[in-house]
Amino acid sequence: MTFKTRIKDIRESKWFSNLTTGIILFYAAALGFKTIDKVAEPYGLLFYSIDMFITVYFLVEIIIKIYAEKSIKDFFKSGWNIFDFVIVFITLIPLENSSFAAIARLMRIFRVLRLLNARPELKKIIDMLIGAIPAIVDIVILMFIIFYIYAIVGNFFFEELKSGLWKDFLTAMLTLFRVLTFEDWTDVMYEAMELYSWAWIYFVSFVIIAAFVFFNLFVAVIIDEMQKINSEHTDEQLNREEEKIDLLLEKMTQMQEEIRELKKKS
Amino acid sequence: MTFKTRIKDIRESKWFSNLTTGIILFYAAALGFKTIDKVAEPYGLLFYSIDMFITVYFLVEIIIKIYAEKSIKDFFKSGWNIFDFVIVFITLIPLENSSFAAIARLMRIFRVLRLLNARPELKKIIDMLIGAIPAIVDIVILMFIIFYIYAIVGNFFFEELKSGLWKDFLTAMLTLFRVLTFEDWTDVMYEAMELYSWAWIYFVSFVIIAAFVFFNLFVAVIIDEMQKINSEHTDEQLNREEEKIDLLLEKMTQMQEEIRELKKKS
Amino acid sequence: MTFKTRIKDIRESKWFSNLTTGIILFYAAALGFKTIDKVAEPYGLLFYSIDMFITVYFLVEIIIKIYAEKSIKDFFKSGWNIFDFVIVFITLIPLENSSFAAIARLMRIFRVLRLLNARPELKKIIDMLIGAIPAIVDIVILMFIIFYIYAIVGNFFFEELKSGLWKDFLTAMLTLFRVLTFEDWTDVMYEAMELYSWAWIYFVSFVIIAAFVFFNLFVAVIIDEMQKINSEHTDEQLNREEEKIDLLLEKMTQMQEEIRELKKKS
Amino acid sequence: MTFKTRIKDIRESKWFSNLTTGIILFYAAALGFKTIDKVAEPYGLLFYSIDMFITVYFLVEIIIKIYAEKSIKDFFKSGWNIFDFVIVFITLIPLENSSFAAIARLMRIFRVLRLLNARPELKKIIDMLIGAIPAIVDIVILMFIIFYIYAIVGNFFFEELKSGLWKDFLTAMLTLFRVLTFEDWTDVMYEAMELYSWAWIYFVSFVIIAAFVFFNLFVAVIIDEMQKINSEHTDEQLNREEEKIDLLLEKMTQMQEEIRELKKKS
Repeated sequence: MTFKTRIKDIRESKWFSNLTTGIILFYAAALGFKTIDKVAEPYGLLFYSIDMFITVYFLVEIIIKIYAEKSIKDFFKSGWNIFDFVIVFITLIPLENSSFAAIARLMRIFRVLRLLNARPELKKIIDMLIGAIPAIVDIVILMFIIFYIYAIVGNFFFEELKSGLWKDFLTAMLTLFRVLTFEDWTDVMYEAMELYSWAWIYFVSFVIIAAFVFFNLFVAVIIDEMQKINSEHTDEQLNREEEKIDLLLEKMTQMQEEIRELKKKS
Repeated sequence: MTFKTRIKDIRESKWFSNLTTGIILFYAAALGFKTIDKVAEPYGLLFYSIDMFITVYFLVEIIIKIYAEKSIKDFFKSGWNIFDFVIVFITLIPLENSSFAAIARLMRIFRVLRLLNARPELKKIIDMLIGAIPAIVDIVILMFIIFYIYAIVGNFFFEELKSGLWKDFLTAMLTLFRVLTFEDWTDVMYEAMELYSWAWIYFVSFVIIAAFVFFNLFVAVIIDEMQKINSEHTDEQLNREEEKIDLLLEKMTQMQEEIRELKKKS
Repeated sequence: MTFKTRIKDIRESKWFSNLTTGIILFYAAALGFKTIDKVAEPYGLLFYSIDMFITVYFLVEIIIKIYAEKSIKDFFKSGWNIFDFVIVFITLIPLENSSFAAIARLMRIFRVLRLLNARPELKKIIDMLIGAIPAIVDIVILMFIIFYIYAIVGNFFFEELKSGLWKDFLTAMLTLFRVLTFEDWTDVMYEAMELYSWAWIYFVSFVIIAAFVFFNLFVAVIIDEMQKINSEHTDEQLNREEEKIDLLLEKMTQMQEEIRELKKKS
Repeated sequence: MTFKTRIKDIRESKWFSNLTTGIILFYAAALGFKTIDKVAEPYGLLFYSIDMFITVYFLVEIIIKIYAEKSIKDFFKSGWNIFDFVIVFITLIPLENSSFAAIARLMRIFRVLRLLNARPELKKIIDMLIGAIPAIVDIVILMFIIFYIYAIVGNFFFEELKSGLWKDFLTAMLTLFRVLTFEDWTDVMYEAMELYSWAWIYFVSFVIIAAFVFFNLFVAVIIDEMQKINSEHTDEQLNREEEKIDLLLEKMTQMQEEIRELKKKS
């Protein structure tokens, strides 16, 4: 057994991926505890050591993964590997004492995202979520158009309101997003109604239209998914059945032919 | 190649529809920036020019579209074309210096709605949304009856409340709509409970009934859509299968006939 | 044509049911306007006349409906007719000057519910809604058990809180219903957390459990409806197919028999 | 009829399970009334007697259930029975005068959970709910990762905010859960925006991402359930059909064989 095959065995072994998952979870927990001031201060050195250890472990792990491939190119063919690589190496850059120290520290959180790669089921869900995007992209555009028109109209009429919720286009968009989540939307409406008594039409129509579009988005996605399943599932069996019926028809034709021959003979 | 066919080519070309989409998006962005005071003031002339340019472009575009049709009548057969035409020409009326100037300026936003016509996928979604209305119209009527009865009852009992949320029928309807969105509905309830301790029955029953009806509306639409798919999809294959089985039966009967003849002969 | 058949024709005619619908809608609108004080006062007599007219019309209408039936018994066989009858006659009792005057006036609103009977589509939806109840009754019981346990526990721990939201069992149930609608539930939680820092577990667990059960209720109803459709729809065709295949098998057996006879003969 | 078979008959009889259900409901109502101070105080002795009676009844009931089984082992094979047993015996421990008195009293509520075991439909729903967990476990993990990252980032930037909503990791998680339920989430956002004007990106992105994942969770569960039904339901019939077609094919082959023999003969 060469050194390379031994490395490959390690990469494919269950304990290696479990170890990585465990270390990521441990690191996640450590990051969580670090946010509690009482815990973070006296154990500063401990957290520093943990950080060092995890950085080294991730480095070793990724080297093993790269080395186990036939060539470096193969490793970078998978989007998930590139994702892993970027996360490991970005957090490797020594910025502790530079002005980016805070950001560098923050970047470390994204190491937790490596969990996505470590657990195949999560990878599948992420792929599913990404796969669901095309089905909704046009409804998102439509939603955006609705938001856009209501934002311009809202800014036009309610710009001078004290709350400043409509002071410019972007703020108006944010306010509309708030209305869509039903978060204190009547406060926004009542303020506007003091100026224009018809303002409730603006808000109620927005809520109904946006909710109706949203609601149909939901239905559309469910229907879309169902159609996929239907075509996958039942079709397979139906196709098999149809083939058999075709075979029956063919045999029948042969037999009829043979019987006719028999008739001629007799 | 005549002039007309050249115009037709332009109308059908991908770059022409992309250009229109691009210009609408550019116009939408411009309208957005205009709402930010710091940006709008120094560049007043620029925004004016953009407006002029877009008005002219839209005019030219619609003339091309009309001219490319066999006759003007054909152009107006499509609801989408009428929609386009109205938007372009309404925003053409010179009202800048009249008392309708503000409204005229506001009307311009609806030009962004032309995006719906420029992107076929959006047109399809709009058609789908409109197609979903008949399935829910009766539930909307039912919802309205529930709202109506609760509004009258609410107005009857809670009319004198300080908040004025029940002061007349329309306000009561608006308050109920607010309750349906769960927006600070307990504030409304607690105020009513100070007067009548049983008021929670009114509110909780409304929330449960309205939510239950709404929930069933949702289920009904999904089921309705599914039924459509089911009948479209599987049926096609099942029908083909059934035809083949019918053919089999027919052939079988023929063969049986022939065998009987054979029997007689022998 | 006897008088009875003429009455029957009236009852079955489209214009009669449309007239009734129209009058109910007109009455509903009148009741709505009556709530606006500015409108109600000067036109008191008008509203009184409308009321009289509608009472008489409804009386005539129901007499027509009863007379058109073979016997009075037939009329009362339909639950919807009983519903109509009760509404018409209860609002007929002259209570204007008694102490029940207010309630009697309020009872009039329920006349609007007669719309449900006037429009067959609405009747169907109501029947569908009632039909959906058995599918959810057990989940409602389960929900009630969850509410019950949380209410007792909440009352046990948070009884002394100033807001009085947990002062007894019923109030605690109402508070939990409020939490379920996410209506200012964090205010309730933060108040409880001042006393017991672990109170967030109580609230977060309630929200998650109740939402999870609710969510599954939703899925269960959709699945239940789908199963019904599936069995109705595809089965019909599949059954027809299966019958034909059975016929094929039978014929095949016959033919085999005949061929064997033929073999013996030859 | 031996004593044991008589006990078995009692256990399986409808009236016994109905009696238990009735007593549990009566006990639940009693616990509810006990929370109302006006009722609880004068009737202290009554409530004590009820408690005693129910404790004894439950004890007798579970002894009947155990005795009716072939051996004690068989009784404990069902998870539901263990659940019952634990609830009955834990509330049997005499803690009235110990320091655990309050907790012991509270434990009594869980007796109401015995309703789940008494009504088979509820048992089925609970089993269904537990069965739905595997389908969502990975999405819950994903949700947790999203929460985790946003909590760390939120704590990093907003730790010093006066409201203390981000003071440590756990509090930040709770705050994010609040944002997910849309409960006054804009208050949280506006506070953060005073410090960092870009904070709306943090909140809007969280709401959209979390809602999108949640939304897909929903769709995934529906689709998953549907797939199960589809495979159960239609497949059964399709399989039967396929078997018949296979039989047809077989018979056909036999016949062809026989006809060929016939041909040779003649």
